[in-house]
Amino acid sequence: MTVPRIGVTLGDPCGIGPEVVLKTLSRPAALPPAAYVLFADARIVEAAEKGLGVRLELRGGQPGSPPSPGVFLIDVPAAAGETVPGRVTAQGGEASFRFFEAAVAEARGGRLEAVATAPISKAAWALAGRPFKGHTDYLAQFYPGAIMSFWSDRLKVALLSHHRPLREAVEAVRKEILVDFFRTLHRALGRIPGGPFELLVAGLNPHAGEDGGLGREEEDEIRPGVETSRREGVPVQGPFPADTVFLKALGKHKTVVVALYHDQGLIAFKLVAFASGVNATLGLPFVRTSPDHGTAFDIAGKGVADPRSMEEAVRLAAAFSATGS
Amino acid sequence: MTVPRIGVTLGDPCGIGPEVVLKTLSRPAALPPAAYVLFADARIVEAAEKGLGVRLELRGGQPGSPPSPGVFLIDVPAAAGETVPGRVTAQGGEASFRFFEAAVAEARGGRLEAVATAPISKAAWALAGRPFKGHTDYLAQFYPGAIMSFWSDRLKVALLSHHRPLREAVEAVRKEILVDFFRTLHRALGRIPGGPFELLVAGLNPHAGEDGGLGREEEDEIRPGVETSRREGVPVQGPFPADTVFLKALGKHKTVVVALYHDQGLIAFKLVAFASGVNATLGLPFVRTSPDHGTAFDIAGKGVADPRSMEEAVRLAAAFSATGS
Repeated sequence: MTVPRIGVTLGDPCGIGPEVVLKTLSRPAALPPAAYVLFADARIVEAAEKGLGVRLELRGGQPGSPPSPGVFLIDVPAAAGETVPGRVTAQGGEASFRFFEAAVAEARGGRLEAVATAPISKAAWALAGRPFKGHTDYLAQFYPGAIMSFWSDRLKVALLSHHRPLREAVEAVRKEILVDFFRTLHRALGRIPGGPFELLVAGLNPHAGEDGGLGREEEDEIRPGVETSRREGVPVQGPFPADTVFLKALGKHKTVVVALYHDQGLIAFKLVAFASGVNATLGLPFVRTSPDHGTAFDIAGKGVADPRSMEEAVRLAAAFSATGS
Repeated sequence: MTVPRIGVTLGDPCGIGPEVVLKTLSRPAALPPAAYVLFADARIVEAAEKGLGVRLELRGGQPGSPPSPGVFLIDVPAAAGETVPGRVTAQGGEASFRFFEAAVAEARGGRLEAVATAPISKAAWALAGRPFKGHTDYLAQFYPGAIMSFWSDRLKVALLSHHRPLREAVEAVRKEILVDFFRTLHRALGRIPGGPFELLVAGLNPHAGEDGGLGREEEDEIRPGVETSRREGVPVQGPFPADTVFLKALGKHKTVVVALYHDQGLIAFKLVAFASGVNATLGLPFVRTSPDHGTAFDIAGKGVADPRSMEEAVRLAAAFSATGS
């Protein structure tokens, strides 16, 4: 059996990234068999091991070809300077950017099937002169069709748009954009084990516009988009009222809800899957996953961070890579 | 002890209204002590009693003054014609409209402290030439400041706007409108036992606009509105990111989330409180509650409807009336 190669980035060293990553990778027997390649500064990893009282069983060198299972480290030196838990710093921003950049370079070169990323701070990236709004925003420069999606046992959600003001998100609810989106999403889901997945699209207006009486987008854009996509063979249905479409999808393992804007999807997802949800960027040549929480600076360095979501992100990266990508 | 007078309307006779109302009122010992006044056509009630095998212990006449506890019937004759379960009909629309109209007239005359309404069909109201979008829309002609709110043990939500296209709802996120809304809501909540209630307002844009980087409404309208209202003594905080504000409020009995548009509030509420939630119209001289479901024409007349939400609506109407209104 050939195991997949899963990159794991340490995240902002001043946040809970090192803690949740080390808690996860120090128990590789609990994870699917894979070559887990940690992108981090070796000195920061050592310090975190001491602080947490855990130890990574690192294999020397690189995963090789065919890759062997285990945990590997690619040392990505951070900028000089002290790491202070709980602080938004340029050093933390620059370090976490470099870890991610190095992992993406490997993945783009075809040497990783997936990357699981620990949380970074956008504010710290800005301090370091790295003006991206997050991991997905960085990836969008190479892959403009990148799709943000959220995965849990109980609910799966993909976002038509994510980091845009609501007014702009409403403007983007257009037939052509939807048809492209459904096509890209369907293709990306086709490479993920556990499918085939069906798509349920939410409406934009209350009660999905009530046949046009409460807004026109459902009749003028969404329904025609769904019909065009269905003729193309994409299994998409809707629009359904946004306040019941998530209930409809709950617990169905092969159903993905398409939310038309950030909060529509995330209000539902966070209520259903808080602490165990995983964010997955789809539509890339590799899979990228991350936990459904941020740097949590307020509890950084205290040893109390819950690693479940990071562990799920690593697990999902491996699962998504099982059939290759 | 003086008991409150609670009007109960039968809803559309072709939906599940008669069933959930009769299941609820046939067990008055399970309800708080009150004079429950049913507004319905006596013949329809009799037919439903036979069909369901339940019986109302009706007291003769009216509740009197001071009112005595028990179940009373005010006979509101429906239009002639057969009642066919599961059908959207002009008769059903007209009957349900008359029941509601009669109850509202009593409440406006000060002879009821609250009204709990079983579901009506807007389409049936339209067939009957009653062009209101629902109970709240009818009440808004007398009480333009009426506020739609949703109550459950785990979560309480009030909507800044309800039946409007999302584009229009976004336009209504204005400082002056918010200040008026917070004031009216705070005043209405002040008359409800169990308080004082604090308000948490959701943001409009992803991550509550991220200090203006993802939309201006938070900085230009919501935050200034919150500050003005706080100076007036209204306990309101925010804006908070919409995808976490409901988690923040979950399980807190004295916290009400202010949602800025219909789906923002209802996506969260229906996920948390499906089947047991209650809709309450606030800002009226009396309280109006209703179950969090519709006419459910598909299961009407089968005896399988779940009365929990209707029972909760009746219970909440009584609870809200306990200190008078």
